[in-house]
This record gives sequence, structure tokens and C-alpha cells, in this order.
Amino acid sequence: MTTDVRSEGPVRIQMADGPGQPPATPELAKLYREFESELLVPLWTEIGDLMPADPRSRAAAHRWRWDRLRDMAGQAGNLVPVGRGGERRAIALANPGLGGRPFATPTLWAAIQYLNPGEDAPVHRHSQHAFRFVIEGEGVWTVVNGDPVSMRRGDFLPQAGWAWHGHHNLSETPMAWIDGLDIPFQYQTDATFFEFGPDEVPTRQAPHRSKSERLWGHAGLRPLTHMAPSPASPLLAYRWENTDRALHDQLALEKDGYPATLEPGHAAVRFTNPTTGSDVLPTIRAEFHRLAPGTASSGSREVGSSVYTVFEGQGRVNVGSAFWDVERGDLFVVPSWQELRLESENGMDLFRFSDTPIFERLDLGRHRAIIEETQA
Amino acid sequence: MTTDVRSEGPVRIQMADGPGQPPATPELAKLYREFESELLVPLWTEIGDLMPADPRSRAAAHRWRWDRLRDMAGQAGNLVPVGRGGERRAIALANPGLGGRPFATPTLWAAIQYLNPGEDAPVHRHSQHAFRFVIEGEGVWTVVNGDPVSMRRGDFLPQAGWAWHGHHNLSETPMAWIDGLDIPFQYQTDATFFEFGPDEVPTRQAPHRSKSERLWGHAGLRPLTHMAPSPASPLLAYRWENTDRALHDQLALEKDGYPATLEPGHAAVRFTNPTTGSDVLPTIRAEFHRLAPGTASSGSREVGSSVYTVFEGQGRVNVGSAFWDVERGDLFVVPSWQELRLESENGMDLFRFSDTPIFERLDLGRHRAIIEETQA
Amino acid sequence: MTTDVRSEGPVRIQMADGPGQPPATPELAKLYREFESELLVPLWTEIGDLMPADPRSRAAAHRWRWDRLRDMAGQAGNLVPVGRGGERRAIALANPGLGGRPFATPTLWAAIQYLNPGEDAPVHRHSQHAFRFVIEGEGVWTVVNGDPVSMRRGDFLPQAGWAWHGHHNLSETPMAWIDGLDIPFQYQTDATFFEFGPDEVPTRQAPHRSKSERLWGHAGLRPLTHMAPSPASPLLAYRWENTDRALHDQLALEKDGYPATLEPGHAAVRFTNPTTGSDVLPTIRAEFHRLAPGTASSGSREVGSSVYTVFEGQGRVNVGSAFWDVERGDLFVVPSWQELRLESENGMDLFRFSDTPIFERLDLGRHRAIIEETQA
Amino acid sequence: MTTDVRSEGPVRIQMADGPGQPPATPELAKLYREFESELLVPLWTEIGDLMPADPRSRAAAHRWRWDRLRDMAGQAGNLVPVGRGGERRAIALANPGLGGRPFATPTLWAAIQYLNPGEDAPVHRHSQHAFRFVIEGEGVWTVVNGDPVSMRRGDFLPQAGWAWHGHHNLSETPMAWIDGLDIPFQYQTDATFFEFGPDEVPTRQAPHRSKSERLWGHAGLRPLTHMAPSPASPLLAYRWENTDRALHDQLALEKDGYPATLEPGHAAVRFTNPTTGSDVLPTIRAEFHRLAPGTASSGSREVGSSVYTVFEGQGRVNVGSAFWDVERGDLFVVPSWQELRLESENGMDLFRFSDTPIFERLDLGRHRAIIEETQA
Repeated sequence: MTTDVRSEGPVRIQMADGPGQPPATPELAKLYREFESELLVPLWTEIGDLMPADPRSRAAAHRWRWDRLRDMAGQAGNLVPVGRGGERRAIALANPGLGGRPFATPTLWAAIQYLNPGEDAPVHRHSQHAFRFVIEGEGVWTVVNGDPVSMRRGDFLPQAGWAWHGHHNLSETPMAWIDGLDIPFQYQTDATFFEFGPDEVPTRQAPHRSKSERLWGHAGLRPLTHMAPSPASPLLAYRWENTDRALHDQLALEKDGYPATLEPGHAAVRFTNPTTGSDVLPTIRAEFHRLAPGTASSGSREVGSSVYTVFEGQGRVNVGSAFWDVERGDLFVVPSWQELRLESENGMDLFRFSDTPIFERLDLGRHRAIIEETQA
Repeated sequence: MTTDVRSEGPVRIQMADGPGQPPATPELAKLYREFESELLVPLWTEIGDLMPADPRSRAAAHRWRWDRLRDMAGQAGNLVPVGRGGERRAIALANPGLGGRPFATPTLWAAIQYLNPGEDAPVHRHSQHAFRFVIEGEGVWTVVNGDPVSMRRGDFLPQAGWAWHGHHNLSETPMAWIDGLDIPFQYQTDATFFEFGPDEVPTRQAPHRSKSERLWGHAGLRPLTHMAPSPASPLLAYRWENTDRALHDQLALEKDGYPATLEPGHAAVRFTNPTTGSDVLPTIRAEFHRLAPGTASSGSREVGSSVYTVFEGQGRVNVGSAFWDVERGDLFVVPSWQELRLESENGMDLFRFSDTPIFERLDLGRHRAIIEETQA
Repeated sequence: MTTDVRSEGPVRIQMADGPGQPPATPELAKLYREFESELLVPLWTEIGDLMPADPRSRAAAHRWRWDRLRDMAGQAGNLVPVGRGGERRAIALANPGLGGRPFATPTLWAAIQYLNPGEDAPVHRHSQHAFRFVIEGEGVWTVVNGDPVSMRRGDFLPQAGWAWHGHHNLSETPMAWIDGLDIPFQYQTDATFFEFGPDEVPTRQAPHRSKSERLWGHAGLRPLTHMAPSPASPLLAYRWENTDRALHDQLALEKDGYPATLEPGHAAVRFTNPTTGSDVLPTIRAEFHRLAPGTASSGSREVGSSVYTVFEGQGRVNVGSAFWDVERGDLFVVPSWQELRLESENGMDLFRFSDTPIFERLDLGRHRAIIEETQA
Repeated sequence: MTTDVRSEGPVRIQMADGPGQPPATPELAKLYREFESELLVPLWTEIGDLMPADPRSRAAAHRWRWDRLRDMAGQAGNLVPVGRGGERRAIALANPGLGGRPFATPTLWAAIQYLNPGEDAPVHRHSQHAFRFVIEGEGVWTVVNGDPVSMRRGDFLPQAGWAWHGHHNLSETPMAWIDGLDIPFQYQTDATFFEFGPDEVPTRQAPHRSKSERLWGHAGLRPLTHMAPSPASPLLAYRWENTDRALHDQLALEKDGYPATLEPGHAAVRFTNPTTGSDVLPTIRAEFHRLAPGTASSGSREVGSSVYTVFEGQGRVNVGSAFWDVERGDLFVVPSWQELRLESENGMDLFRFSDTPIFERLDLGRHRAIIEETQA
């Protein structure tokens, strides 16, 4: 390695040795300085980082504890007002590998949001696709394009980009939930639009079922007024009762000898857009997984990153070289192509979201099941 | 019109007069005889029939009375055994314009099927897409690819082409239901395959919910084991309770001022394939319509033919120049491009199926709402 | 077989014996008479015809001789005027199995069209998809939506349904060509619309290349003004020079050891819509096949029917149980699911069109290569 | 703005004032420190940067001069060997806003590559989609999956991800060309795979036309052996002669009064995948634009970033607030949502590539034509 003088501009090229590197001569140093002044960078010094044999994410596998998140959010509830400008009392996971930015993964945002009794999170809209998922509590209604949607434990609430939305807490107690969005993806690729709406949500109605559920919440039945495919799901709430029943049915079918689970003891459903049968949001996949007591998943890797949260139960998680015990509410991140294994002695329910649709839609998806090697 | 000698072969060309017709000379007669012997037919004598300004179906608008169908089916139940060879005790609607063939429309088959207590309709499979719809009664299980599916009033049960299926009646009373298939379409276009299976259905199990419902009957939730789109719906039963609730919700939303119905007082849902969000079968559209009391639909026409059956209530139907009073169980046919109007004083529920997916998938679909003209 | 009294109405049910048939009792006869008066037909008497083990087309394998067609067309050129009402001097192949109708197959129309020097075939449009294919001659321009397109030997000229079109012969000699349309399909399914335009084509311009070719005739290059997919090809002429070169290239690649031909000695291209890469017309597939000298194709069957015409050379054709020697211009029909084999001692070029897209788009397609069985 | 103590870990939260910010109290400072230690970041301090009203790219509009690039590449040709490890003698544009990384835009890589007579760039493959575009020179063959493809001035040569490829220079002179890839996109999203092949290209054959062109280079004609859609174009060379002719035809059609150009005097074609009719590569759009002499384009913006290179002629470019004179070979970058205007007194041809398919496939695309405001 030859030391060289630092350039003034943004580009800085270091000589390297190793296979495929040119001899470190004064002429080369001079050429590199010219490259820098012309805003040029050679491939041969960068290829190892840029084009590895398989994805080497800068993002780290990491776990956040729910009790700490919940506590932080409660403190923010006392110190931080919610209103126009800050828009949301949301606190985001910052992956330790991503430079302190509020990015759970290179593409995904995950945050805890907190709303005190009587508060309004003001109305706005943005190109980012979003969802809410409720670990615990209730009392908040999100109002999406004028339709008030209740939020209760276990509910998954997707929201298409560019839909107007605000929230208000009609209960007597604070409520916290998890927000997922594709903010890092749209930020990195410069696709983001944002617009302010009214400071207060347009209705104080608090129906048990939203209009969207009355119109779309009937399996396999579509209203004739809405037959065009829509990029994101028009169903604004996927209720826990249904998810729970679907997972229960899969495990019961498995007991009956019928192929219904992803692997023995491992039930899983994907939230889908009823107008297309595919992912609920164009850039975000959302799923619910249930491990029956005594189940260990096989290992798998895939292109793209995921965030998991434990909805109920306890278990042990292995991501790449990291191992954690996890329990209700804990969140953890699986970077691209890192191997994931889950196990639980007494059973565990997990909510997962990922950026996989981005890769599948661009024909860049890969998935690999890890076959266990056993010794004789 | 010139009389001419009949040819020996299958082709026979008649001279005509009128716009665009050649002068009826002996030379022309001789040429037409040569055409006949060469198996040739001119366009100019046929164009008026073949290429009308808009569809002029040979099929007629027609209504069949449920009480008569039910009675015929009962008599057949006494006289006609069900078993291998005849395969099904099914009695089909024969449109009076279609030459006595068992074709409700040029593309669709509609029949009443009848099964006595303890009987088995033997297992077979065919390329034709099919469904069952239950006007009244219960007690029969259809077993599709080994999965027993109960049949109850109001249920819609689609079945993809090439699925093995048989039926058996486990109750103490006969049961009748409606079969819909695309037999005429596949027959006319030479696409039909058929294979015999066992003489008896492979299981006597009679569960309340089929495996398919346990796997697929959860709105917006897909099992991770089955993520590829399938041409036809994997959900084998669309239960009346859900359909009824969806229609009820639409009318309630309409009352709340929210756009949910097809037109005022007219709720409608389409049965869809949860893996694609589109029609439940590749060649057959199926829908349920509810007219609130005092509702008259606006007129409309579309390319393709439909069969309707009254599920509940009474009303008045106008198809082209035909007018009928209809009540529970009555079936009627709407030929392509004929105008349809429905009205009901006390409310009416209708099940409809049609061949519209054929035209939509081939970019041949057209639909026209009839705007009422009012005079000052 | 029991004789029974003929009914008055269109339906007539005959008692049958055989497997699955009910005992021929007076009660059954009475029931059948009631069926007839109610416009009902049982499945059990019809199933053998309606639902065979595999497609049994009423259409027959048949060949028409080009010299006879050409001669008939010439005679019609003398006797039959072309103009409004008759619209086209076109003479259609009438399959001997299809009741004397001008249907080459149950779905396809094939005709020879003939235009004298100076004549105009008047402008009209129709929902039927159409193409022209030129066996020999030139001098006619077809004007499609105002764009004049020359027609020369070997050219394939597709035309989307509902495009305005007329033809005129600007040369000093008559010209004949082949028309292909989906008239029988749209007729049988009641999808047909038709509208008259002006009696004369809107332009006498006779450019060598049409506007459509100037805009669309550049492989892989799309004008930015036209990026939406269109159901049918916007390219109005596929010139023989290109087709010939593509076939030549495939055989040359085969010689170079590169997999390019359908089977040894058998080159084949499909005409496609550049906006989608799929079939050139929504209901019609069009292809060109070249057998190198000494080539015998393997046998194959597929769902759907085809019409072939020999463009150049000679050969021997086997369709089901029919065998013909064929030469330039001869046309022959391959009904659904009948086995086809082609061979040629000195080489043969064939143009083919079929209704396969109908079945593929409806998930009804099946294809089977016939593996030769050899004896030891 | 309150100064606060720097945290130890990767996260660092600064207090801010302004709309929606909480009062800067010691309690808040303490909470922020806790956030940092828990790897959490609030939305309210970040939202202005993360969710702007419209895309605010960190990438800058910038132009690189071809003569400088060409000169640098030539120097590298003397000093830098090409071979295994460094893989390619490629020198990438480093956008001044992107931290000195070799990223022309947040998603796109653009480089000049240089090969001396007799040299081989070794075989490898990668998940990144790539293309080559030739400003000047010839003599290099790229061998893609064993198929040698010549490279000549004006040619566009796409190459699907995961195709094996190497290059060799069979001429007596060095050759330089432009490489475009989606390296930054796949790097940022962790989708990248890479594999080494042989050190030398597998063939020294140097045909004028590649096998891919012989198989796929016939407008609208597909080989029957290859009817499945492929994610990227199977045609490995889009030759300048065809592109030139297509652009010429558009301008000639415009003169004839036929709508063919993007706007008056501005012809444009998109390179497309003949198996789908859509973009030539799943993540990269490629186009050629021609401004007739005296043409000024209207302004437009779109989501996503582009790189342009001047192929011929001269002109003036305006991107956002930047203005440049450009000539043959110059490259410039248009960041997302920045307005672009082009004009040329004597005519100018431009090659363009962009990441637009990423956004269109994810339903995130937006485009806006800028309507000129004129003063009275």
C-alpha cells in the first residue's frame, strides 16, 4: 500500500496492491490525481467492494428490545409534542451499519409511533408506501382518505403511497404501534414526494369496521364498482382474528396430513392485495409466521432485507453469526443474503416485513433454502 | 331471388339480389356450382349474416321456471340411475335458438343436477371449467381432488378444469342444484378433454369446511406454500353467509353516502380467484346481484352471454323485447348485446354467470350502459 | 334403440341404450317428451358427443388446390362486381365437416380475394381480426386507417379489429391474395361488430413503405410516442425479405451447431406484436415454416385448428389419416388435436395461421409432440 | 440550535428548533442520548431531509468532457494492465454529490472502458445488468455466453445480468467505449452476485453478425424455439444503421404531417426487449434522441436519473440550474426530478440511459412536462 496525497475534491483514489492492481508508480499516482480532478474512479480499485461474490450488506443483523422501545416512546410522549412540521411522534430503528441514519435496513424504515389520549397526528400524504402493525393496545383510529380505521392488537394496516392519512387517539390511554415504510429505498433512489394536509383528521367517527373493510373484507368477493387492479391493497385493515384463524387452520391441516405449512410446525401467511393476489404494497412484503411449540425452522437466505417482530411467545433467533433470545415485541433485522433460523420451545408468532417485491418485480430475486448437512 | 339446382355436396350457394350482389346470369349459376364442388363459399352472399352491425345472436332470450325444473329433476330421480357412462343426472337448458342442443347460450351450459340419498356421481375430470350453485337444500358433498366440500343454499362452488371430482348425497333427502360449465364453448372450439376416475368418491368424510376453505378462505391472506398464480380459483366454496354480508355492506355503505353500489339500490359482487384477483374461472364470470326493494336497474348491454337465476325474492326482467315475472329459482338467459333491465318491488337477489372473461382476455369485450332519454 | 314420436319443438331427445342409459320405459319416454316441451336436454344422452376423451372436431382435414382457387377467383373477377354491400370479392374455404358454412375451421376464415386493375374494395371496419398473405402478384395497396400499404409476394399484413380499411389495385393486372380472419369464432360467440366507411379508399398514394413500417419496422426500436402496449400489432406489413432472411439464418445457425431451428432442417418464425412480443393478433397466430430439402418433421398435435398454405416448393402432408401431395399455393386445414407431419424432398416453405392464442389466453392450450416408436 | 455532546456510537441526534420540534430541555437532551445508545432516531428531526416535497437528489447535474475521458483512458491503457482481479480497464464517472463513489447517479454506473490491441478482458458474470455503447472506434468483440459480438460506432449492446462475458481487441488499434450498469442500485440494495470465468474469452471468432442477431434481429419475427418471455433482451446488438434509419424515418414522417416524433424536430426511439416489447433490461432504459437542426426541446422532469452522451453534433443543455455546451462524446447526468432542456442549432444525436424501469415496475414513476409560461 502506497500512501498518497489527499485530493481536494470529493473523489479520492488509493493505490492498492493485490491481484489485478497496476504497479504503484509515480506515473500511476499522477494519473489517479488527474482522475480525482476529473471526478473519475477506476473499477479496478473498487471492484472488491462493489461486486462481491454475493451480497455483503453494510447493514448488520441487530435486535431491539420492545421494553426499551416502549419506554423511550413513553418518554417522548411526555417531552415531544406531535404536530405540523415534525408530523409524527415516531422513533426509528437505526441499523448500526448504516451510518446512524434512521434506516432499519438499506431499504426499510421501522419505527415505534406513540400517541397520547386526545392527540392528532396531522394529515399528510407521501409517495412512500406504509403500514401500521399493532403489538399491543388500542384506541387510535387512522383516517385514510377520509375512512376511519380502528387499530387493535395484531392488526396489520397497509396504506398505499399518496393516500391522505392522519391518526387520532380517542381513548383514555396512550397507544404505541409499529410503522413500516420504504423511506430508505425512496430516499436513496430519489423518488419521494410529500404534501401537507389539514392539521386535524377530518372525522371523529370511530366505527368498529372501516368502509374499506365493509367493501373489501369478504374473501374472494370484489365489488363490481372497483374491478381495476390497484397497485396497493384497497383493504385498509387485516384483522388479527382472521390472521390467527388462518395460521391455526394451517397447523390443523398439517395434523390432518394435508400440505399446508411452509415446513413442519411452521405456518405462514402473506398479506396480499385482493385486486391482484400479489403483495399488499408494491415495495413491501408483509407476512405472519407461527412456530408451533418445539419447532425449529430450517435455514434460508434471500436477496433483500427483512424486519421481524415477535407478536407473541418466545424463541431463539439466529441471523448470520448473531444469536438472540427474543420475546413479545422485540424487533430484529435480517440483512440481505444472511441466513435466518428460528426456533421456539413453547411457540412463537412473528410478523415480518421485507423489501422482496422490489427484487421480484425487477427479476433480481433469489432465494436459497439451506440444506442441513449431517455427518455419518 | 333466383331458384337454382341443389348441389350434391355440403355446400349450397343461393343467388340473391340486393346491394352488392352480382347479376343472376347463367354464367354466375355455373360458377356457384363450381364453388360448391370445390367447397368454396363467397363472402358477398354471406356477409349480411356473418358480419352484422352488432351481435345478432341465434340464441334467444328465454326463461325457465324453477318449479318445472325441480319437478322434472325429481321425476328423473325416479327413472334415471346415476352412474358410469351417463356420469351425472343433469338436465340442461336448451336455448330455443340453438337447434335443440343442450346449450343455454352459444358458450354456456346450465343444468339442474339431482342426487338421491346415498347416491354417488362417479369421479371424472374434464377440461371444461365448472361450478355448482345451490338454490335450495343441502346434504351433498362434492369431492374435488380428494377434498370433500359441503353444498348449502346460496353457496357458489367453482371447480377448475381438469380437477378430479365426484359427488355423494349423505343426507336422507334428495338434493338438486345448478351446474354451470363452458361445455358449448369448448365443444365448438374443439378444446375438450375427458377422463374417467373411480366409480365412487374417494372419501365419505363430511366436514363442515373443506380443506380449500381452511387454506384459502381468509380474505387477503395467502398460504406461503402456494404463491404461484393459478388459472382458476383454489377456493372451492364461496359461502352464502359471506356473499350475503358483502351485499348487505354495500347497501349500508350506500346509505352512509359512500360509493359502494353499482347503481342506487343495486349491490353486486364478483367471485374472484384469490391468486390473481380476477375471474374465478378462466372462461366463466360469476357474480351476485341484490336489488333493494323498489329498485329498477338501468339498461345495459355487453358482448357475451349470461345466465341468471333468482336466488330470493321476485321481480320483473326485460331482455331485449322479452318481459318476464321471475321468482325464486327461475333461470333466464341474456344473449350477447341484448339489453337487460331488472326491477323489483320487494327486493330480489340474483346469481349470474357469463362468458365475459373469454372476450376480455381476447380484447374483444365491449360494454354499453343505456342512457335513458327523457323528453321535456 | 327405441323409436319415439317426434316432438314439435326444437328439442328432440332420443332414447339410447348403452352404459349409463336408463331403461327405455314408457315413463321415460313421457319424461323425455316433457323435457322437450320445457326446452331441456339430459346430459346422459349427450355426453359421448359433448365430452369426448379428446377433441373430435367436426371439421375435416382437407386440402384446396391453388390452381382451382385461382381459376375460380378469376372467373368471379369477370362476373362479380366489387362494391358496397358485398364489400369484397372474396371466396372462402368451406370445411366439408362444417355444414356448408364458409368456415375453414370452427374458428377461422380463409379466403382468396381478387381485385381487378383500377378497382376499389370499399372502406369498412369490423371487430374481426384479419390479415392478408400474398402467394403471388402485386399491385394492390391496402389502406389501413389512412396508411397505404403495398402488398407483394410473401408479405404478411396483419390488421387489428376495428381498423378502417379498403383496398385498391393500382396496377395493370388483377391480383389475388389470401385473407385470414376470425369470423367463425366471433360469429359463433356473438362478438361481431361492423361499420361502413367511404366507398373509395381515402388516398391513391402508393408508397413503397407504409407509415407503419417507417415507424415500427426497426427491430427492437420503439417510437417514444407509442409506448403503450396495443392488443394487435401496429406494424402493418411483415415483408418477405425479412422473413426469408430469418429462416435462412436459422438454418445457417443450425449448420454452425447452434440451437436455432424447431427440429433438424425445420426453421420457423412467429409473427409477433412488437409492443408485447406475443402474437400478432389477439385471436390469430401466424408463422412461417421452412423445411430444408430432405426434411421430415416429427408429428405433433395441439388444441386448436390451423390453416397452412404452401408458399414455395413441394412436399407431402399427413393430417390424421389424410395424405396429400402439395405444391405452391395449396391450402390445407389441420383440425384440433389431429396429428400433423410434413416432409419435403426438395424443400418447402409454408405459411401457417391458427387460433392458438384463444386457447393460450384462456389457459386451455395443450400441445403434444409425437414420439416415434421404433421396432427392434 | 443547541449544541450537544457527541455520542460514542454511530447514531448522533442533534436538537433543532423550528416548526414541530420539541423544546430543547435537558430532559430532551437526555432522551436523545438514550435514543443514541439504543440505536434509535426520531422522525421529527429527520423528516425535512428524508421526506421532501419532491425529490432532492444528493446527486448533482454534471458534465464530463469526452476528450478528457478519452485521454485518461489512453493513459490508463499504458499504466494499468487488464486482467483477473481488476477485471476491466474501466474508469467510472463519480458524481460530485455522491461522496466520491463511482456512481454517476444514485442507481447508475457509467464508465469509459479501454482495450489495447490483442488484450482480453477476462470472462466473468454478475447479477448487474449492463450494456456497452460505442462513441467511436471498432475492433473489439464482446463474447456473451459464447457468442462473439462485434462493436462498432453507434452500436448499443445490452447484456442481461448473470450472462458470462469477456472482451477482446482483435484490431491493431486501441478501442474505448462506454459501459452502463446498475451497479449502484444493486450495491445499495444488496442484490449483487459475481462469479469468475476463464481468463480468456472462449473464442477468437470475429463474425460480422452475432448469433443473437441472426436469431433475433428480424423485426417482429420470433424463433419458435424461444417463445418464453425473457427478463432482458436476447438481442445482443442494436446496430447504428437501424437506429439511424428509425430516427430518420420519424423526422421524415413528421415532414409528411404524420405524428411520429416526440415533439417537433425531436425524434426518439427506445431500445426494447423483443420478447416483451418493454425495456431492454429490467433496471435500465436506453434510448436514442435526435434533435433536428434548430430544435429546442420542451422541458420535462421525471422520477429517476439519466445519463446522456452526445453521439454526434453539438448543442446546449440545461439541467436544473446548470447550462453546458456539449459536443461529440460528452456525457452528462440528469438527477431525479431536475428539469431537462436540450437545444441544437445544427442538429444533435444523443444516447440516453436511465433507471426509469425501476420506478415504473414499482408503480413509483412520475413524469411531468414543463409547460412554458409566456408573458404578454
